[in-house]
Amino acid sequence: MGLTVAEKCIQNSIVYGDMTKRGSRIGIHAHQTLGHDLNAIMTFLALNQLGIDHVKTELSVQYMDHNMIQADYKNADDHRFLQEMTAKYGVVCARPGSGICHQLHLEHFGIPGKTLIGGDSHTPCQGGLGMFAVGVGGFDAAMAMAGEPLYIKMPYIINIHLTGHLPAKVSAKNVILEVLRRIDVKGGVGKVLEYSGPGVKTLNVAERSTITNMGAETGATTSIFPSDENTKAWMRAYHREEDWIPLSADEDAHYDEVMEINLNELEPLIALPSSPGKVVPVREVAGRKIDQVMLGSCTNTALNDMKSIANIMEGHTISDSVDAALYPSTRTVIAESIKRGYFNSIVDSGVRIFEPMCGGCNGCGFAPQTKGVSIRTTPRNFPGRSGTKDDQVYLAAPETAAVSAITGEITDPRDVDIPEFSYELPDSFIEPSNLFYTPHYVDEVHYGPNLKPIPKFGKHDSVESGEVLLKLPDNITTDHICPAGALYLPIRSNIPEISKHSFMTIDLTFPDRAKAAEGGVLVAGENYGQGSSREQAAIIPRFLGIKAILAKDFARLHLANLVNWGVVPLTFKSDDDYQAIDQGDTLTVKLDEMQAGQDVTVINETKGATFTVSSPLSTEDIETVKWGGRLNQMRNRSDSHVTA
Amino acid sequence: MGLTVAEKCIQNSIVYGDMTKRGSRIGIHAHQTLGHDLNAIMTFLALNQLGIDHVKTELSVQYMDHNMIQADYKNADDHRFLQEMTAKYGVVCARPGSGICHQLHLEHFGIPGKTLIGGDSHTPCQGGLGMFAVGVGGFDAAMAMAGEPLYIKMPYIINIHLTGHLPAKVSAKNVILEVLRRIDVKGGVGKVLEYSGPGVKTLNVAERSTITNMGAETGATTSIFPSDENTKAWMRAYHREEDWIPLSADEDAHYDEVMEINLNELEPLIALPSSPGKVVPVREVAGRKIDQVMLGSCTNTALNDMKSIANIMEGHTISDSVDAALYPSTRTVIAESIKRGYFNSIVDSGVRIFEPMCGGCNGCGFAPQTKGVSIRTTPRNFPGRSGTKDDQVYLAAPETAAVSAITGEITDPRDVDIPEFSYELPDSFIEPSNLFYTPHYVDEVHYGPNLKPIPKFGKHDSVESGEVLLKLPDNITTDHICPAGALYLPIRSNIPEISKHSFMTIDLTFPDRAKAAEGGVLVAGENYGQGSSREQAAIIPRFLGIKAILAKDFARLHLANLVNWGVVPLTFKSDDDYQAIDQGDTLTVKLDEMQAGQDVTVINETKGATFTVSSPLSTEDIETVKWGGRLNQMRNRSDSHVTA
Repeated sequence: MGLTVAEKCIQNSIVYGDMTKRGSRIGIHAHQTLGHDLNAIMTFLALNQLGIDHVKTELSVQYMDHNMIQADYKNADDHRFLQEMTAKYGVVCARPGSGICHQLHLEHFGIPGKTLIGGDSHTPCQGGLGMFAVGVGGFDAAMAMAGEPLYIKMPYIINIHLTGHLPAKVSAKNVILEVLRRIDVKGGVGKVLEYSGPGVKTLNVAERSTITNMGAETGATTSIFPSDENTKAWMRAYHREEDWIPLSADEDAHYDEVMEINLNELEPLIALPSSPGKVVPVREVAGRKIDQVMLGSCTNTALNDMKSIANIMEGHTISDSVDAALYPSTRTVIAESIKRGYFNSIVDSGVRIFEPMCGGCNGCGFAPQTKGVSIRTTPRNFPGRSGTKDDQVYLAAPETAAVSAITGEITDPRDVDIPEFSYELPDSFIEPSNLFYTPHYVDEVHYGPNLKPIPKFGKHDSVESGEVLLKLPDNITTDHICPAGALYLPIRSNIPEISKHSFMTIDLTFPDRAKAAEGGVLVAGENYGQGSSREQAAIIPRFLGIKAILAKDFARLHLANLVNWGVVPLTFKSDDDYQAIDQGDTLTVKLDEMQAGQDVTVINETKGATFTVSSPLSTEDIETVKWGGRLNQMRNRSDSHVTA
Repeated sequence: MGLTVAEKCIQNSIVYGDMTKRGSRIGIHAHQTLGHDLNAIMTFLALNQLGIDHVKTELSVQYMDHNMIQADYKNADDHRFLQEMTAKYGVVCARPGSGICHQLHLEHFGIPGKTLIGGDSHTPCQGGLGMFAVGVGGFDAAMAMAGEPLYIKMPYIINIHLTGHLPAKVSAKNVILEVLRRIDVKGGVGKVLEYSGPGVKTLNVAERSTITNMGAETGATTSIFPSDENTKAWMRAYHREEDWIPLSADEDAHYDEVMEINLNELEPLIALPSSPGKVVPVREVAGRKIDQVMLGSCTNTALNDMKSIANIMEGHTISDSVDAALYPSTRTVIAESIKRGYFNSIVDSGVRIFEPMCGGCNGCGFAPQTKGVSIRTTPRNFPGRSGTKDDQVYLAAPETAAVSAITGEITDPRDVDIPEFSYELPDSFIEPSNLFYTPHYVDEVHYGPNLKPIPKFGKHDSVESGEVLLKLPDNITTDHICPAGALYLPIRSNIPEISKHSFMTIDLTFPDRAKAAEGGVLVAGENYGQGSSREQAAIIPRFLGIKAILAKDFARLHLANLVNWGVVPLTFKSDDDYQAIDQGDTLTVKLDEMQAGQDVTVINETKGATFTVSSPLSTEDIETVKWGGRLNQMRNRSDSHVTA
């Protein structure tokens, strides 16, 4: 039987397991890895303990794009640490200011058919190039750099079959918003979203990557497009046609599900506050007053987006009630935008232009005012992620956001007069010098005062008891567990410090209560840990003494992080069991019963009740979590090079 | 007898006193005022209490350039508050992102011969246009907006007589560095620096404003150039030639002192860490490794600077050991730089380009790493001002900084090969739309949760006693008293909160000790309060219970702030008296003896000693300070409109 694009990629990298068995454990080898300045600190701290001299991938790249505010020494210290580590381990290093990791990788490194393991949840961006790109926590990124396989559940493969072509004023962002409208923020868990059909050839690589990038919000393992003539044109324009290969699903490939999208029928869509899955047509909320517009992020502001925005802004000024800003995606995009006059039209309209970085998307600057209403082209609008706790962030396509910046209210771009607009991929993109470089390094890596060692955790007891310190609802995000924003990102390299802010938007007393109780357990609803790849969302509860998390289910990436850091994830078997627990109850969990597919007994000591939960983990992962995490386990391997 | 340029301006605005009596109290009327988003919160809070409907100046302008990081809701809340206040009071408002206040004012509003009272210490920037421009605290800015005179000591007028012309690779920044080399950071106190001589006509307005802007670092009341054909050309290029008048000193004008500078003899200079007055030739420190270069600030990065930097960067890349960034001064400068290719050359070299704002100069972003060595084109390098406590910041001209970014070490620009370079002022500057606008406002001003009311203070007792809570050395800056940096600027509108960080770089225990002691006194050396106009540096010690500050002398602007907020300033009569006091001593000060020119008895209860100090204040200011500040006093005026 024929293979899908995803299967061809997996076949090209599988080192363990059987990909025909959906949901089974497989191990894949990373041809490439990427990391950024927020999550890679942990990656390099871990790598440093793994006892290797040089990364064992074909290519590993380190980007500087998240932690860029530099409000004090911490960001700059982290950059120096990362730069020196790249020189030490043979990692390609991007300069701060070169651009957003996923867009730079798309321009310079992504290769169809290969596998990328990236320390960021939006790593599937490279799926736009036909690459199998999976987001992981920093520790799994380190393992991949050390040549170890990444173990995942073999995903189910969903075919999203595209027909027609996008109407005017309806850009590619609306395709992924439509997918999210249909399957919401956990509809992709355990799955790959693979695009096919005649609509594919109407989309260039930048448009495809907008779709695969934000596909992360469905919880999917990754998203992928075929590699075709458009892919070839993209790679040629970036002076690397030699890396191109054609790649498409075989005619007799089998998909586990099929979703049909007729591009002709799409209209401008918008995600309401505060979930990327709350998608409605723009016209349903048109007329709502806005305070702020943010253009940018890894999902948008490639050159096609810049042209679209400039085309709208040309000769207009932004509304007197709106503050608007744009983060271009890369330095190349800036250079091309200047050359073509886009940059100037946007500057002239009153839009603030920042350097290419993630910026406001994860609250690193440009936070809205108290209760501020913001339209953003970013992929994610979890509560408080903008840096403002009570924000009201909408997600939309660049043309919707740009038009709304002019009108001062949410506006369907079809309801205003915009000059006709078409975009042709340039034959050749400008290559600014110095995007990637070899940082200055002489033998010694500098550890700034904020950079604390990885905390050490013990093995779990066969029976663990503890108070339910938080009872949480569905869809708890990594932003809830470990806050985003310019005030908190710089202390992610300092677990004792960042742990003081865990769950701050839900319950400020949690860290102190956890300490006072000397640990305990958490209880949560569906999709616990959705969102980013930050493994601090696993480490800091562990640091605060959380032994186990009982949830209805877990987001894939966060589940892997919990295993790596030794927090026991357990899954409720019925909603009644979830409902019967109150915050403050004491639970006893018989961890010795934990085996793949077996029940685990939980006693609610407070209520005098007993129920069973199950483990969502494989036998191998259960072993890891019982060791109290991957580093503990590796230290005990006979061939271990792991340092204490 | 003839008049100097400064005297002509004063004559044009004096409403009280006699300008022939140097050092005497005079009152001047403000034709214009300016404020920015850091200090103007207090301005508008005060203005709101003064009972007026509309500003009483010819022009008042509000800029948004300091508090621009928006790490959370606070900056954006402050912006909204200010925007609504400008609409309420008839103040012209600049958009966030339009540019740095002093440079925008120079482009669009400064008028030769008129008086500007600005809520920022670098207000003398407009002296480059022949304007008499004085920096004040936010409260005095409010008074000026309400039509009240500004009372200052009639300054002595120092003539800086320029001959020759600047050599290649020695830009105007080196003129003010030379002045600082000669007279240091308090050599200008009580004085105006007035430029004349044949060298003047060799400098365009942007170059002159670099000199007058940074003249603030000498402690001078202001700095001023004549208005001539170059001034006219500048104003013509900004489409406002009709506001131009010629202005120069009469031939028989009398100056109190004369300083000669032969521009031909200047060489590249650099201020060492951490004072703008520690100036040496660049060659004396050439070869020191650097980590960072910051181009920008109100002192530099007008279009001439952009051309100079682009000319150096063209075809080069910055060193692998350096992180470099540029803040252009205004949106016009960006547009012109794009048009002329400067922007692109700089982007291509690897320099990060931020939006036009004060940025790294006052620690709002781009802080260096721990112990980081940074060359900056900014006017000020007080310890920790960059946001990094143990920074090593050098101040230099743009060409020195740019060349050093390429070499990775401090480099005299004459020691490298740079293409020949000349700059001609454009006939007409681009005017981006929307630089100034009328913010959205309907009757209600929004006060964000971080914006706390002005604290209320009581009258002073006739005798005040208290512990010496800090004994401080010379040259304590406003950055010491009230920290700069992105972590602290947003809480300047919240006195209880910012007071917790007072003197943090000197003694972290001070705020708690002051509270525990229920107040006390401070003892300091020379030039106490040098630096910025922030009145929080007066308010927060008062809020913490500081009743009096005994110092060898005070910086002019800070002294005015102490009066406005009711902190008693007293001046030592001998160094022995200063030396004899230890931190922790209890002092009793007989405030009832305080009169202009009279001694005030101080008893050191701990040491059993008695000595006398004097008041640096006029009769009127003594009255104000005894009331516990200007607002208290005004509430008690018979014609008061001041609200409680």
